[in-house]
Amino acid sequence: MGAGMARNLLRAGHRVAVYNRSREKAEALAIDGARVTETPSQACLGCEVAFTMLGDDASVAETVWSENGLARGLGRGAIHVSSTTISTALARRLAAEHARRGQRFLSAPVFGRPEAAEAQKLLIVTAGPEEIRVRCQLLFDALGRQTFVAGNEPWQANAVKLCGNFMIASLIESFGESFATLRKAGVVPRVFLDVMNALFASPLYANYGKMIATEQFEPAGFSLALGLKDVRLACAAADELAAPMPLASLLKDQFLAALAAGQADQDWCSMSRVAARNAGL
Amino acid sequence: MGAGMARNLLRAGHRVAVYNRSREKAEALAIDGARVTETPSQACLGCEVAFTMLGDDASVAETVWSENGLARGLGRGAIHVSSTTISTALARRLAAEHARRGQRFLSAPVFGRPEAAEAQKLLIVTAGPEEIRVRCQLLFDALGRQTFVAGNEPWQANAVKLCGNFMIASLIESFGESFATLRKAGVVPRVFLDVMNALFASPLYANYGKMIATEQFEPAGFSLALGLKDVRLACAAADELAAPMPLASLLKDQFLAALAAGQADQDWCSMSRVAARNAGL
Amino acid sequence: MGAGMARNLLRAGHRVAVYNRSREKAEALAIDGARVTETPSQACLGCEVAFTMLGDDASVAETVWSENGLARGLGRGAIHVSSTTISTALARRLAAEHARRGQRFLSAPVFGRPEAAEAQKLLIVTAGPEEIRVRCQLLFDALGRQTFVAGNEPWQANAVKLCGNFMIASLIESFGESFATLRKAGVVPRVFLDVMNALFASPLYANYGKMIATEQFEPAGFSLALGLKDVRLACAAADELAAPMPLASLLKDQFLAALAAGQADQDWCSMSRVAARNAGL
Amino acid sequence: MGAGMARNLLRAGHRVAVYNRSREKAEALAIDGARVTETPSQACLGCEVAFTMLGDDASVAETVWSENGLARGLGRGAIHVSSTTISTALARRLAAEHARRGQRFLSAPVFGRPEAAEAQKLLIVTAGPEEIRVRCQLLFDALGRQTFVAGNEPWQANAVKLCGNFMIASLIESFGESFATLRKAGVVPRVFLDVMNALFASPLYANYGKMIATEQFEPAGFSLALGLKDVRLACAAADELAAPMPLASLLKDQFLAALAAGQADQDWCSMSRVAARNAGL
Repeated sequence: MGAGMARNLLRAGHRVAVYNRSREKAEALAIDGARVTETPSQACLGCEVAFTMLGDDASVAETVWSENGLARGLGRGAIHVSSTTISTALARRLAAEHARRGQRFLSAPVFGRPEAAEAQKLLIVTAGPEEIRVRCQLLFDALGRQTFVAGNEPWQANAVKLCGNFMIASLIESFGESFATLRKAGVVPRVFLDVMNALFASPLYANYGKMIATEQFEPAGFSLALGLKDVRLACAAADELAAPMPLASLLKDQFLAALAAGQADQDWCSMSRVAARNAGL
Repeated sequence: MGAGMARNLLRAGHRVAVYNRSREKAEALAIDGARVTETPSQACLGCEVAFTMLGDDASVAETVWSENGLARGLGRGAIHVSSTTISTALARRLAAEHARRGQRFLSAPVFGRPEAAEAQKLLIVTAGPEEIRVRCQLLFDALGRQTFVAGNEPWQANAVKLCGNFMIASLIESFGESFATLRKAGVVPRVFLDVMNALFASPLYANYGKMIATEQFEPAGFSLALGLKDVRLACAAADELAAPMPLASLLKDQFLAALAAGQADQDWCSMSRVAARNAGL
Repeated sequence: MGAGMARNLLRAGHRVAVYNRSREKAEALAIDGARVTETPSQACLGCEVAFTMLGDDASVAETVWSENGLARGLGRGAIHVSSTTISTALARRLAAEHARRGQRFLSAPVFGRPEAAEAQKLLIVTAGPEEIRVRCQLLFDALGRQTFVAGNEPWQANAVKLCGNFMIASLIESFGESFATLRKAGVVPRVFLDVMNALFASPLYANYGKMIATEQFEPAGFSLALGLKDVRLACAAADELAAPMPLASLLKDQFLAALAAGQADQDWCSMSRVAARNAGL
Repeated sequence: MGAGMARNLLRAGHRVAVYNRSREKAEALAIDGARVTETPSQACLGCEVAFTMLGDDASVAETVWSENGLARGLGRGAIHVSSTTISTALARRLAAEHARRGQRFLSAPVFGRPEAAEAQKLLIVTAGPEEIRVRCQLLFDALGRQTFVAGNEPWQANAVKLCGNFMIASLIESFGESFATLRKAGVVPRVFLDVMNALFASPLYANYGKMIATEQFEPAGFSLALGLKDVRLACAAADELAAPMPLASLLKDQFLAALAAGQADQDWCSMSRVAARNAGL
């Protein structure tokens, strides 16, 4: 994800310094004009805006707060934009810690796969102080096709992102249960998929429906382990807001069952196999 | 629904006799060329194909098997096409009873609201013996924009239809939980709706999302009582096929809670208020 | 069950005529003094009170309303006491049909296994018109150790019985999930069972806990197919009363998954294996 | 809880130093012979075994690792016994951190309310290295009526404790759903309670059943906020072990709905009101 985003910033004429734990990944961006750095701290020296696009809460915390972390290098008044799908709790902590250091913070998680990042087609959901959002808009324009503002507190953007992934996971489960029932009814999966495509007319239904109907779960576009992580974070957000989400709870249990069955590295829509197995398929 | 379907058959040049419990509704079709009859039995006399489009299992059973019912009037070799969203169990019983009388039977439930029926835009899912399906295809062409074949046993079409409605109810619940959580997070519903429209690009998400975001549940496009009926039938199909559908079970309980709260006549997407209430909203 | 009940009535000095589809089973009671009959109708001729103790709704309906059924033989003013675990809907229908014939009707489902029936230790839950309940109390005293009155409408006793079985199924599921988690935690099942016995001090926890901990599911004391039937009826009662029971819905889905895995004839507490399987055990 | 435990240790002839954030609570134990101290660290100086009995993970972490915390005062080879209901994750961290300091660690969570603690009737579940368990057995004998060994790793005892509380919460939910359904069926709650007492013969069913039937939720014996915390920890244990617990997930959502309705300080069995409300009661 990060590579595509960096390239789009370079294409838009911005100066970009990059850091990646795997140095080769960073160096691949050198030919596009990026300056490759040794540490997150170094990457941020003198920059106006620092983006992080990582795997999970733990990697963000380490990248920001370790010895040579982003928080060390980022100047007073400079902005950290977090695009990783992280917990609302970590987003609040980032906002508080950056404020303590005189730094600014925005959440700007994105919807879209690496191809969408490359093609400047990400959907960006941002939240944070208006002034900062306005300053970053040009960058968002370089990265995605549309930017949405969730509110003035950064963690609100993370809540929206987590609910969005919850919506996709819900469609996976609904497809999984339907296909399981219909296979036991002797209905060819393709038929149901065709009906659903005519009914929903949504590319997400087309893509996930096809993967589930044909049980093509490898290679993973988005791994089940990451899907579980996101649903877990959605449940955590629901918990801290005292807003029960029984469907999110169901999804978490289905993902756990898939994990227990060894599907961590398959695509997250392989979660549909849990419904199939419980139907004796 | 039935009126639009009848008009489209007339427009296509077919001769149509109609029956409705409310005679006025039938008579409204007389100006379009329909012959108005007194009983289901009478409507079927001498016809090749008899469509039923009713409210539920009970009304279909009565229309078919009461004293002046369809089964009395329908000739040997003539075809009954059932378009009501009925249980798979009733579909099997209809197939068996018609066979016993030397009559033929197809299931052909549809997706689409009355406006779609009028506009010849229904999606038709049919199942039954191939020969009969082929004979009815011209009629289906007159009624809808696309016909899907679920299998050679009529009840398979009903299973597909019930799973399709389950898919829509699932999206309602996922929206309901997301909006409840996000409202407690201080995120304006419209923002999440915009993101979801960009993400799913589906007219169903746009329509239901808007109704749920704005809590406009009246007048009902499709009543909660009917929605509960359909999810109940989906659960019944899952039960008889021994294919557990935990999400369908969740939906049934949410619909029941909405019913207990007096929402029977609101739109079925008002089921989203259950998640809101359980979040203290 | 019926045999033990009949013997206890004979022991208490009542005259008893018996009918069973398997004539040998009825004849086994002849040595205890029962008059063996050819049909339900014949068994009821001239009797004051007729008990039915059968397998499910269908067998009760057939025994009562078939050509030589109970309803034919039972005299005006005579009482039908239904002890089968049936649906609340069938109980209402029985009450209505018997009333139409000038006959009386009580529901009196029981808790207890065949051994308890033999030992006069059943728990009897009855409901129906007070006058009739009073007249039958002597019989109930002969059959069980305690009688509870659920109300004046027969179906209320069935609702209580179904909720009681739901309570037991809930304890099975809670044990199943605990044992699955603890086995993955490396805790010996016996330890948890000992703690729970000390905590709950209930013979039901002791019995079911032991069966689940040791996975001894055969021979079945109460089959999974019957357990599923009862939970299905509990869900149906919840549905008609518009009282969502999400735990009952969960149980139904777990039973269905067990059924799909071929466990119909195992003890109903083998439902706990679903949680184990979904944990990868 | 802690007061009763301290008194029983004193009664058994042990020397006891106590610390409590509310000094008065500690001083109340002075007349029984306890030495009152100013900090956790001070309380542990020179002691062989240090018990902690606190509210949650956060208070344990603070009591152990703050500046004047237990970990500072506890000598090499001395034992920390944690009796709080904490997460399995914190138990593992405690074991690791104490080991790093040359200190020993046991988990020994308990079942029982403050009255049981006073009366030496706690059920103690312990886990940790055998040698340490053996050394502490005399102390456990002074505190409770029975000790159970969950394994050689401390966190296993916490897993057992969390599953035990999950079992109790499950019975609360099953009662809640049954009473809601039966109230809509017109059955007096007392009747169902009597039947369940005859059926389960368990003091826990008697106590919780009565509270739920009569809706007496104040004062709280164990608060709903703490109940939610424990079910949350059970879900977390299930998550880290990849053992889906759908019933635990359901309970968490019901507790959250109760919390959202303002019931945090009521008894945890007031969670039953969620089922009642969703039934329109």
